[in-house]
Amino acid sequence: VNDPTVTTRVTPYVLEEDAVRVLDQRFLPAQENWRVVRTAEEMADAIRTLAVRGAPLLGAMAAYGMWLGAVRARDGDRTHLDAAVAGARALLGRSRPTAVNLFHALERCDAALATAPGDPEARVAALKACADGVARADREACRALALHGARHLPDEGGVLTHCNAGALATCGVGTALGVIRAALALGKRLKVYADETRPLLQGARLTAWELMQDSIDVTILPDGAAAHLVWRGSIQAAVVGADRIARNGDVANKVGTSGVALACHRHGVPLWVAAPLTTVDPRTPDGRAIPIEERADDEVTGPPGGPPWAPTGVKVFNPAFDVTEASLVHGIITEVGVAQPVTPATLAALLAQAPAGTN
Amino acid sequence: VNDPTVTTRVTPYVLEEDAVRVLDQRFLPAQENWRVVRTAEEMADAIRTLAVRGAPLLGAMAAYGMWLGAVRARDGDRTHLDAAVAGARALLGRSRPTAVNLFHALERCDAALATAPGDPEARVAALKACADGVARADREACRALALHGARHLPDEGGVLTHCNAGALATCGVGTALGVIRAALALGKRLKVYADETRPLLQGARLTAWELMQDSIDVTILPDGAAAHLVWRGSIQAAVVGADRIARNGDVANKVGTSGVALACHRHGVPLWVAAPLTTVDPRTPDGRAIPIEERADDEVTGPPGGPPWAPTGVKVFNPAFDVTEASLVHGIITEVGVAQPVTPATLAALLAQAPAGTN
Repeated sequence: VNDPTVTTRVTPYVLEEDAVRVLDQRFLPAQENWRVVRTAEEMADAIRTLAVRGAPLLGAMAAYGMWLGAVRARDGDRTHLDAAVAGARALLGRSRPTAVNLFHALERCDAALATAPGDPEARVAALKACADGVARADREACRALALHGARHLPDEGGVLTHCNAGALATCGVGTALGVIRAALALGKRLKVYADETRPLLQGARLTAWELMQDSIDVTILPDGAAAHLVWRGSIQAAVVGADRIARNGDVANKVGTSGVALACHRHGVPLWVAAPLTTVDPRTPDGRAIPIEERADDEVTGPPGGPPWAPTGVKVFNPAFDVTEASLVHGIITEVGVAQPVTPATLAALLAQAPAGTN
Repeated sequence: VNDPTVTTRVTPYVLEEDAVRVLDQRFLPAQENWRVVRTAEEMADAIRTLAVRGAPLLGAMAAYGMWLGAVRARDGDRTHLDAAVAGARALLGRSRPTAVNLFHALERCDAALATAPGDPEARVAALKACADGVARADREACRALALHGARHLPDEGGVLTHCNAGALATCGVGTALGVIRAALALGKRLKVYADETRPLLQGARLTAWELMQDSIDVTILPDGAAAHLVWRGSIQAAVVGADRIARNGDVANKVGTSGVALACHRHGVPLWVAAPLTTVDPRTPDGRAIPIEERADDEVTGPPGGPPWAPTGVKVFNPAFDVTEASLVHGIITEVGVAQPVTPATLAALLAQAPAGTN
């Protein structure tokens, strides 16, 4: 069997000499603003402000942030460098609370540093190699999970996705959008529907832009219209990403995902979660134990960056993520295979196949 | 038993001499722009552009639009006036397709005209009386259904609503928000959560503004966060309005309602639909038979009135309404009582109590 080539024209970052150039996703699709990140502080800021976002990408960006912390302190001694890296780690660890990939990547950096020689340049190089490894592993995981998932999509029909689990959210072809890209590469005739994904509109802004860059058929809709689209029979499968998957298979993903899952469940449409194994956190027993980040009111009271449309002083509930119960998830697609049905046992079986150091 | 007084400071229109002054809801909450509507054409335009909206209010506005059509032709003979009124009727009948109240009101006007004397002034007066009757009936229906519904809300807790089924959508205290107002008047301690209701944000803009005018505790949230709010236990009941209710109890309401219903159903939270009997259409067998208006792309590609945030040329799915299946509706609250469970029989029993001419 020949696997199809899965490609994309989209890339969210480029490595430079002692810096990372990142595509500032807040300005998409109107502008492709590239921003040079030279310090751990700048990387933490890029993560916190969502200039870069997407759980798998955040892992690589956090690791490169550690490297930048070391780079900027390479002229001192080991004590100086280690203190700078510890500061970088603390800063990056506070940048976003929900994506477990970020914490995994920081732990990989800790391990790389623990075994690296004491010479500052060697420690810089160790962190660079670690970050490159995180990025490469993510790129390979995207490709592998895309191929595992592609055969589960229908030969034709509508596929619903939420938020942006694409190339812009990873170091490769994306997770959910990687599965769709691979299915298209297999010759399947799919029409993609992308929820706009309020409040930050990663669907309307990013998924639409990303898929149009690759000439993939995409239609956007308000989040509230997703259940209607499923009800009227336009959707044959849904594929979403994940920010954290608990041991029992409960999935934290962009807020609105659980609503998509409920609509799919009601109408017998399979909902697939596509995510690298780094997203699975066996230390989290279930969805109730996942911390859900709540974000600023002004993301909801008006358009991104624009004047408010809600009354001054209104109260706001703005969770960034929600929890989709395992029983609503048809299957979890990873780089080593698919957990279906989603149970602690099927998930554990996948984790047992994970390359060393993944979790 | 003394019924509580249910009041609001909010009113969406004021009658003037041969004109209707309407609050242009598109400018809320930033501005209270009042607009004088003098002709049927202007009324149809106000309805089509959503300057006025809300199924019950559209009934009264359509009837006043017929009256204005006659007023502007009162200086001619009966033939001239009847032709003008027929033109007004055609125009108003094409303004919005989903709200059945609008068509009921037009039919009431037909009947009033059929029995009115031939003298133009008498025909103008007959249409005025008819429109006043539609408005009065709606005001009374709001009050009655608010009182019927109020006792079904919990004594305390969170109540979720979607879109604006309030004073701004009716001639009285509102339907869903009328029920909440009456529950508060009974001394219940409720915290209202209002979905922002993309794309036109009638929740973030109108429900939030309307409830704050009456000093009612309200929190807005993105539509996609509603399922999460229910999942985490913050919601003890949901109350929404309806644009059309089919004979079997399927409910067409603002897009996103069915998602709220699915979340409530999953977590054992009762979802109530509050609507006057004019909203029930026995000629529509079920939700599949309800025409769902699809609206312009630019409502979704950017903020209301603002520059686009989605890529140029992206395809858009923008249904204004969705269908909530009867089995997901805990009860339907009307001015003559509550249908619970929602079945063709319980609905028919309510319709049998309707005042003559309601349906």
